[in-house]
Amino acid sequence: MRKEVVLVNINGELCSRENAKISIFDRGMLYGDSVYDVTLSFGDVLFMGEDHINRLWQSAEGLYIFPHFTKEFLVQEIKRTLKEAKLDASYIRIMLTRGEGELGLHPEENLKTTYIIVLQRHENYPLSYYQEGIHIAYATVIRNDSRAIDPNIKSGNYLNNLMALMSVKEKNVHEAIMLNKEGYITECTTSNIWCVKDGALFTPAESVGILSGITRSKILSFAKDLGIKVCEENLRTIDLEASDECFITSTGRGIFPVTMLEGKPFGDGKPGTITKKLMQTYQEYVEKHLKNSGYQGNLPNFNP
Amino acid sequence: MRKEVVLVNINGELCSRENAKISIFDRGMLYGDSVYDVTLSFGDVLFMGEDHINRLWQSAEGLYIFPHFTKEFLVQEIKRTLKEAKLDASYIRIMLTRGEGELGLHPEENLKTTYIIVLQRHENYPLSYYQEGIHIAYATVIRNDSRAIDPNIKSGNYLNNLMALMSVKEKNVHEAIMLNKEGYITECTTSNIWCVKDGALFTPAESVGILSGITRSKILSFAKDLGIKVCEENLRTIDLEASDECFITSTGRGIFPVTMLEGKPFGDGKPGTITKKLMQTYQEYVEKHLKNSGYQGNLPNFNP
Repeated sequence: MRKEVVLVNINGELCSRENAKISIFDRGMLYGDSVYDVTLSFGDVLFMGEDHINRLWQSAEGLYIFPHFTKEFLVQEIKRTLKEAKLDASYIRIMLTRGEGELGLHPEENLKTTYIIVLQRHENYPLSYYQEGIHIAYATVIRNDSRAIDPNIKSGNYLNNLMALMSVKEKNVHEAIMLNKEGYITECTTSNIWCVKDGALFTPAESVGILSGITRSKILSFAKDLGIKVCEENLRTIDLEASDECFITSTGRGIFPVTMLEGKPFGDGKPGTITKKLMQTYQEYVEKHLKNSGYQGNLPNFNP
Repeated sequence: MRKEVVLVNINGELCSRENAKISIFDRGMLYGDSVYDVTLSFGDVLFMGEDHINRLWQSAEGLYIFPHFTKEFLVQEIKRTLKEAKLDASYIRIMLTRGEGELGLHPEENLKTTYIIVLQRHENYPLSYYQEGIHIAYATVIRNDSRAIDPNIKSGNYLNNLMALMSVKEKNVHEAIMLNKEGYITECTTSNIWCVKDGALFTPAESVGILSGITRSKILSFAKDLGIKVCEENLRTIDLEASDECFITSTGRGIFPVTMLEGKPFGDGKPGTITKKLMQTYQEYVEKHLKNSGYQGNLPNFNP
């Protein structure tokens, strides 16, 4: 799915993809010394914008990156870029780096945070992912230990996730499940994971070492509202494999039912009842969120 | 120590620091999806060049990055850049990235490896580091687990080391020692660590999760030649603290005696006898290596 890059904003300068260049002395390039977040926009409404900007700042602070500008300034910059790009629906990647420096691991004082905003035309995932579900497998790479690199910091160090994704390449699946060093399930490479057993909803506890997903927090709240029993706990592979339903969540995807794990189906191999109920609830929430934010255009469909 | 950047080579184009720019869609920038190595050159002689180029390739292969060019081509490119820069002594950083791609963790097929060569004027470290030794402390961040991100891959994901270095900032030391999850000593953030007890030389075994240092391998070999008993094993903090001598090694530094750990001196607080013997042997090796490679200029001094 090659998406069209429409506009890039680098430290306030708007440019095309071809001209979107940065110094190789930027610490993002030298050491992955950066953080990022990804969201969507519909018209000029940032999708769960406050949550994403707050998480971006939290990631930055986790690395002791303290931007010389405010969240409000960055949101204005995103909106300015969106206005210029004139897209109905955008996929937005926002990066902050510690700034341009010298070679040498120890950062100089008073570096100036680099910000980069990339806008792409948002394209929906194939309908079949929602309607028929996706397949996943276990990565052979374990998740970073929170005491080494905290998975709850969305940083420019993504090799752990990349190596995990590459480890399942031959299996032809959509996502890879990462276990931690004790063998507990953490998350997939770019999504959180969930399962349903006997009507109760399970997802790995944050303490196991995961990115605290924004969609994840919404699903937790919806499930409670719907009267579904929710358990955030340590999950083993045998717990997952004995489940009736499974799904993954992320901002870009919403909810994708998972119908197959390592070639074995969950239940009857179709998206499960609670999964579908949560997809419907999520769609209703999205529509309400966008309408309340003043968006009047075509609504995205996370529950086709 | 702000060093002067003299020349940069990006995919064959020579440019100044100011013009050394790369696409923000390079995966090195997006995900730290890159490897690097650092060496020195004296005249056009690459310092332990073969070892460094081999390790760079090994790091790349560890991430399934397979350059579309050969090692020989890259060495030619380094030499071409050196010739243009006309430096007596250079500090060289060589980076390979998976190439420029699209947003999205999974790399496209047939990406073209990016290569970047940065040349700086080589400047010696302060004499006092060699003559009086340096101080170090324990990082509060643990070393990446080999099953998550292998420390023996010198990649663009250096936040683990950076966070370790930042964790000792208040202690005003030169380097930070990283322990693994079991509490064994691994390495410092940009150097290998050694200690001497009762005349025997100790350094963490590779299996503990370290970068297999090129200077490290030389020191192991010198020590054996000198009849010093060498032990590569699991070292605990109490083993290190009970040592008579301590030192760190890296390509840029050679050997730095460590005279203080967490504010407590080793032995009499001066560089130790075996440390000094190894510094002298290393200097002799360097001189021989450079002369045998045809270098006739001023010799570097790693044992002032």
